[in-house]
Amino acid sequence: MNLTIAEVRLTPILVADPPLLNTQGVHQPYTPRLIVEVVTADGITGVGETYGDTKYLDLARPFAERLKGRRVSDLNGLFTVADEVAVDASEVENAVDVGGLRGVQTADKLRLSVVSGFEVACLDALGKALGLPVHALLGGKVRDAVEYSAYLFYKWAGHPEGVPAEQDDWGAAVDPAGVVEQARRFTERYGFTSFKLKGGVFPPDEEIAAVRALAEAFPGHPLRLDPNGAWSVETSLRVAEELGDVLEYLEDPTLGTSAMAEVAAKTGVPLATNMCVTTFAEIKEAFTKDAVQVVLSDHHYWGGLRNTQQLAAVCRAFGVGVSMHSNTHLGVSLAAMTHVAATVPDLHHACDSHYPWQSEDVLTERLAFEGGRVAVSDAPGLGVELDRERLAVLHRRWLADDGALRDRDDAAAMRIADPRWVTPSVPRW
Amino acid sequence: MNLTIAEVRLTPILVADPPLLNTQGVHQPYTPRLIVEVVTADGITGVGETYGDTKYLDLARPFAERLKGRRVSDLNGLFTVADEVAVDASEVENAVDVGGLRGVQTADKLRLSVVSGFEVACLDALGKALGLPVHALLGGKVRDAVEYSAYLFYKWAGHPEGVPAEQDDWGAAVDPAGVVEQARRFTERYGFTSFKLKGGVFPPDEEIAAVRALAEAFPGHPLRLDPNGAWSVETSLRVAEELGDVLEYLEDPTLGTSAMAEVAAKTGVPLATNMCVTTFAEIKEAFTKDAVQVVLSDHHYWGGLRNTQQLAAVCRAFGVGVSMHSNTHLGVSLAAMTHVAATVPDLHHACDSHYPWQSEDVLTERLAFEGGRVAVSDAPGLGVELDRERLAVLHRRWLADDGALRDRDDAAAMRIADPRWVTPSVPRW
Repeated sequence: MNLTIAEVRLTPILVADPPLLNTQGVHQPYTPRLIVEVVTADGITGVGETYGDTKYLDLARPFAERLKGRRVSDLNGLFTVADEVAVDASEVENAVDVGGLRGVQTADKLRLSVVSGFEVACLDALGKALGLPVHALLGGKVRDAVEYSAYLFYKWAGHPEGVPAEQDDWGAAVDPAGVVEQARRFTERYGFTSFKLKGGVFPPDEEIAAVRALAEAFPGHPLRLDPNGAWSVETSLRVAEELGDVLEYLEDPTLGTSAMAEVAAKTGVPLATNMCVTTFAEIKEAFTKDAVQVVLSDHHYWGGLRNTQQLAAVCRAFGVGVSMHSNTHLGVSLAAMTHVAATVPDLHHACDSHYPWQSEDVLTERLAFEGGRVAVSDAPGLGVELDRERLAVLHRRWLADDGALRDRDDAAAMRIADPRWVTPSVPRW
Repeated sequence: MNLTIAEVRLTPILVADPPLLNTQGVHQPYTPRLIVEVVTADGITGVGETYGDTKYLDLARPFAERLKGRRVSDLNGLFTVADEVAVDASEVENAVDVGGLRGVQTADKLRLSVVSGFEVACLDALGKALGLPVHALLGGKVRDAVEYSAYLFYKWAGHPEGVPAEQDDWGAAVDPAGVVEQARRFTERYGFTSFKLKGGVFPPDEEIAAVRALAEAFPGHPLRLDPNGAWSVETSLRVAEELGDVLEYLEDPTLGTSAMAEVAAKTGVPLATNMCVTTFAEIKEAFTKDAVQVVLSDHHYWGGLRNTQQLAAVCRAFGVGVSMHSNTHLGVSLAAMTHVAATVPDLHHACDSHYPWQSEDVLTERLAFEGGRVAVSDAPGLGVELDRERLAVLHRRWLADDGALRDRDDAAAMRIADPRWVTPSVPRW
C-alpha cells in the first residue's frame, strides 16, 4: 500500500445558485467552488471541496504543488504546508469576505479554508485505501444519521431579467406567508423538523412576523433567525424579547464579540455564531466573556474535519454548544459534514446546509435527506463518487466566464437589480 | 480485514519501583500496573497499559466484557462503553488518589483512566491491521523524536530493611549534592538536557538550594520544581521569587485552582499543573482565572491519546502551554506518550517520564532515550512487542501478593520506615 500523493487535480467550477437574499445583497446566479482531487501512487483518488473564488484558487495551486510526494495520512502536516504558502496581503488586508459573511478576512482564514479541501480529499483517499469510512478515521461515528435544519431564505422568484441563470422551482418568498410556504415544501421534500431563517434582509418587525408565522405553522419546532450581524445591540435585545418563547437560538444578531456579549448578558435566548468565532484565536475572548452559547462550526473555515472535532472539544470543555454552519456547497462537502458531525458527541442542534438549494452537483448520486437526516455512509472514504462529465460541464462554465462570477459578490449581484445598492453599513437596524 | 474485537486480556502486574520520595511518602517497592490486550477476529493483538490498582481493575473487567464484538476502530464509542460501566461510589467518594497525586478522585477520572488503556490497545491493533504507526492514526507526526526531561527524585539508597525489594544502582539523593549527582547520571545515561525535581519532601529552603545547585551545575538548562501542592500561596511566591531566574516553570506549588490563580497573579514564573486541571471539566475555571500557564497532560488521566490531542487543542486556543505528566509506567505507555506527543504542534516543553526509574518492563526491547529524546516509531501500531515471559513473571508477582501492594499507597510505604508517619495536611509549608 503506497499512500504517497502522486497527483493533485484542482477543478474550479461555477454552480447554479438561486436568488437567495441576505443582508449584503443576493446570491449570484452561479457561485464558484473548487473541487480538489488527490491521487495516490496506487491510483486511489480522494475528493474534497472548498471555496472557489480566485483568492482561494491562487493559494490552492502552490499548495497542491507542495503536496506531491507527501502521504495522504500526513494530515497534521497539511498545516505546515499551509504555513509555507505565501498569501498576497493585498487580497486580504482589511477585506471582508462578502460572500462568506464570515467576519474580517485574514491570511490564516484563507489558508485554513484551502487546507480543508485538501484534508477532506486526503481523508477520502486514505479511507478508500484502508477500506474504512471517513468517520472511522475520525474515531468512529456515535450516531447513524445526522440531523439537518431547513435553511429558509427570503428569495425572489428568479434572478433579474436578462441575467443568464438556471430557473428554480421554489418561487418567491418575501413575506411571512412566502416563508411558511417555503418551510412547508422543505418539510414535505426532506422531512426537516427545525427551521432557520436567513434574516437581515427586511426591517426586524417583518422578520419577527415571519418567525411568528413559522411558530404558528410548526408549533413546538426549533426555530432560528440569523440576520448576519445586521442589528444593533438594542434591536437584538428587542427581537430576543419578542421571539424568546419560540427561538432555539438567535444567530449573530449583532457584529463583534463585545456587542454579542452585551446582548448575551441581557437575554435568556442563546446566541449562536459563525461570525465572531471563526478561528481558534477568537475563542478565548468570546468564551471568557460568555458572548456565545453555540458555535456553528464549518469545516471549511476551521481547516478541516479534525479541526472541527477539536473545536467541538473546546466548546464541550466550556459548556458551549456546537452545531454546523453552511455556505453554498455541493455533495462532497455535505458528505464531509455528515462524517464529522457523526463523530461529535453532544451535538444537540440540527446542522445547517444549503444543499437543498443546489440543483446541480458533481456526484453520480445526490445525497438524500430523509426525515431531515442524512445517513452516515459506511462505505470506504466519504462514500461518494465524482460524476466526471458533470464536473467537466461545470468547469467549462467556469472557463467560459469572463471573470464576473469567479468571485462571489452578493452586493454586485444586487446592483444588477438595483443599481443604487450599496452594501449596508452595520448595524443596519 | 475484520477489525472486530474477539478477545480482551487483562493482566495485572507488580513492577519494581525504587524508594522515590514525594510529599505523601515514598514509592512502594512494587507498584501495580495493568496490561490490556485486545485481539481482533483476524488474530491481531494490540497492547495498552494503565493504572493497576484494584479500583481500576474492578472497572476494567466489566469494560473488557463489553468490548467484545465492537471494532478496534470505534474509538469514540469507548466513552459510551465507559458511561455504561458502574463505578462503586464507595471507592471514589471523597477519596484522594494517593499514589497518583492527581487531585480529588471522581468516578469520571477512574473511567477515563481505564478507557486510556483500552484506547491505546485498540490503536495499536488498528495500526497493525492497517500497516500504519499509531501517530499516523492520530494525523501524523510533526517531529521525528520527542524530548523528555530528567525526572529527579529525592530518594533513599534502598527500601527499608527487611522489605522485599529489588535493589537499584542510583544510590541516595537527600540533599543538593545528591540531586546534582543524580542529574549527572541522568545526563550521562540518557542525554537529558532539562531537569525536573520532585519536591514537597524537604522544607522549601532545602529544595531551593537543590535547584540552585542544579542551576550551577547545568547553567542555562531548563529546570522545574514540583512539590505536589505542598506549599501555601505565600511559600509558593517566596520560592518563585528566589528561583525565578532559573525556573522554566513551577509545577503545582499549591493546591487548588483558586490558590494557583493567586500565585499566578503575583509572579512572572509560569505555573504548570497536573493537579488542578486533570479533566476537561476543570479547564474553564482555571483558564478564565489564568491560574495555569502550562497543562501537563497525561493520556491515562485524560482518557487516551485522542483526548490528549483535544486537550492540546484547548490549550492552544487559550494560549496555554502543554507538556506531559508522568507517573510510574512501563514501555507500552512510553511508546503511547511518544506517538501522541509527536503529533502535538507547539509542544515547547520536554515531557516528563518515570521510565528511567523502571528497571523492569514487559517489552522484548526497552525504548531508548538518545540525547534525551525517544525516536518516534514508524512501525505499524505502537512499534513495541510484549515479552510474554516477562509479563507472566510480573503477573505471578501480583498473584503472589497478599493484597498489600496491589493498591499503591505511598503513605503506607513510608510508615514501614517511620511508623508515626501520617499523610501531611496541606499546605505542609
